[in-house]
Amino acid sequence: MQAKEGIGSYVRMFNEYLYDQVLDGMPSSLYEPVRYIMNLNGKRFRPAICLFGCHCFDTHYEKALPQAFAIELFHNFSLMHDDIMDGASLRRGQASVHNKWNVNQAILSGDLLLVEAYRYLSINLKEGDSINVMGVFNRMAIAVCEGQQMDMDFEHSRQINKGAYLEMVRKKTSVLLGASAEIGALVGGASFGDAANLYRFFEMLGLAFQIQDDLLDLFGSQTSGKEEGGDIKQGKNTLPVVMLAEKATEEELAYLDDLRYSGDISLVPAYLELMDKYSIKSWVEQIRDR
Amino acid sequence: MQAKEGIGSYVRMFNEYLYDQVLDGMPSSLYEPVRYIMNLNGKRFRPAICLFGCHCFDTHYEKALPQAFAIELFHNFSLMHDDIMDGASLRRGQASVHNKWNVNQAILSGDLLLVEAYRYLSINLKEGDSINVMGVFNRMAIAVCEGQQMDMDFEHSRQINKGAYLEMVRKKTSVLLGASAEIGALVGGASFGDAANLYRFFEMLGLAFQIQDDLLDLFGSQTSGKEEGGDIKQGKNTLPVVMLAEKATEEELAYLDDLRYSGDISLVPAYLELMDKYSIKSWVEQIRDR
Repeated sequence: MQAKEGIGSYVRMFNEYLYDQVLDGMPSSLYEPVRYIMNLNGKRFRPAICLFGCHCFDTHYEKALPQAFAIELFHNFSLMHDDIMDGASLRRGQASVHNKWNVNQAILSGDLLLVEAYRYLSINLKEGDSINVMGVFNRMAIAVCEGQQMDMDFEHSRQINKGAYLEMVRKKTSVLLGASAEIGALVGGASFGDAANLYRFFEMLGLAFQIQDDLLDLFGSQTSGKEEGGDIKQGKNTLPVVMLAEKATEEELAYLDDLRYSGDISLVPAYLELMDKYSIKSWVEQIRDR
Repeated sequence: MQAKEGIGSYVRMFNEYLYDQVLDGMPSSLYEPVRYIMNLNGKRFRPAICLFGCHCFDTHYEKALPQAFAIELFHNFSLMHDDIMDGASLRRGQASVHNKWNVNQAILSGDLLLVEAYRYLSINLKEGDSINVMGVFNRMAIAVCEGQQMDMDFEHSRQINKGAYLEMVRKKTSVLLGASAEIGALVGGASFGDAANLYRFFEMLGLAFQIQDDLLDLFGSQTSGKEEGGDIKQGKNTLPVVMLAEKATEEELAYLDDLRYSGDISLVPAYLELMDKYSIKSWVEQIRDR
């Protein structure tokens, strides 16, 4: 309960800081989509991790607010561009930027978000910290691009190696969680070793979260309230799907392809039956808990 | 002749450095378009200005090579994304990236170019220099996004204010030339004042170059070897076009619109006649030489 209070206070502090930032300039057409996506009621999970990372080493963790903001800007840059690439018309229940405006606007306002992320990253940093923080951020940003590319490449492949899938998830989502914590820690004065340990913890946590999300989609409908098999219906790659494809016979694989690309949710039970035959759930749980 | 030799030696040094850079990683599908556009035989004008800026203050101007490379990466990032937005199928006589691959690939590989630009920007810099160089770069990058947005907004407006047009050109193209020189100067140890002066000189030069380019398109076919009125044929805004629209009567303006959107090059003489009536050439030359 206390921990939850803690996360809430990081989010509140961050939202107050966000409220004070002037995301405006000329021409206003460039800045409107930036303000739109930044105010779509995100969970602010990544900036909260950044403030927490700083809090581990310094009671004045508000000093990491510009870096927490840089991370949220980067996250929203990647959402704006990924939504174009994935053809996603909704973001947090509202129209995505390329849907509300157009693709060109989403490209350019996304570019501005990335530049603004770099601008905030250096604010109020001591000179030595700036180079270290920038190094962590650059490595993270390159990994996120690579993860998105892997995800796009996987769309066209029928069978994906389990290791490659986990590497994609690590790069596309977990590295940003790790970097959020590490950057906060560095701003708070942590040693390189301590900051790197915090990175690793949140990277692993991010991976476990994604796997749990994959599991809930298939096996957790009673508890999560999510639509059962929504990922399968969308033809998405998830760890259970990838592992089942590794174990299934050629015949079963052809059958699974039919199910996967039919978009018919009523076929999910047949999918679950095969998952059961190969004990996929417990295999995936083992990986999650590793 | 000596000056030309000088520019040539900056370009040669830069191209040798470029040749040694490993623009590769996994997945290779992400890095291929990056290598493709970086090796499309660009003029390397901007990195040469950066090396020149450093050379003004330090004989060891090779120290600015990573920053010169950062500037060329940024330039190519903006080309890759602008080509999508402008629907340009060719770049330096070859297929543009979104044409050779697809739009998603050009978005993502462009994003990687921008991140790589930031990564190179800090390489081998003293800590104090890093923050100053980053500040110049961030301001430049924001201006370039704003300039591209103005250009896109102008496409839909019939009459553009001359001042707004020049501000668009300044942001979209001149600021990058100015920043190239200023960053080189800072790496070479210039004072803030000297670096800012060099910025202003190259910003003005960039503006004059663009105006001269606009003039050559209309009035310089004998000397430049360019297709006469190519810009008009494409419906592009240029300074002569913008100034003529400011001076023409409502009737002439309607006639100009017809010419401009007809895509018919045989109508260019009629356009030139009106340019002559209002002495547009000498007005534009005055602005160029200001």
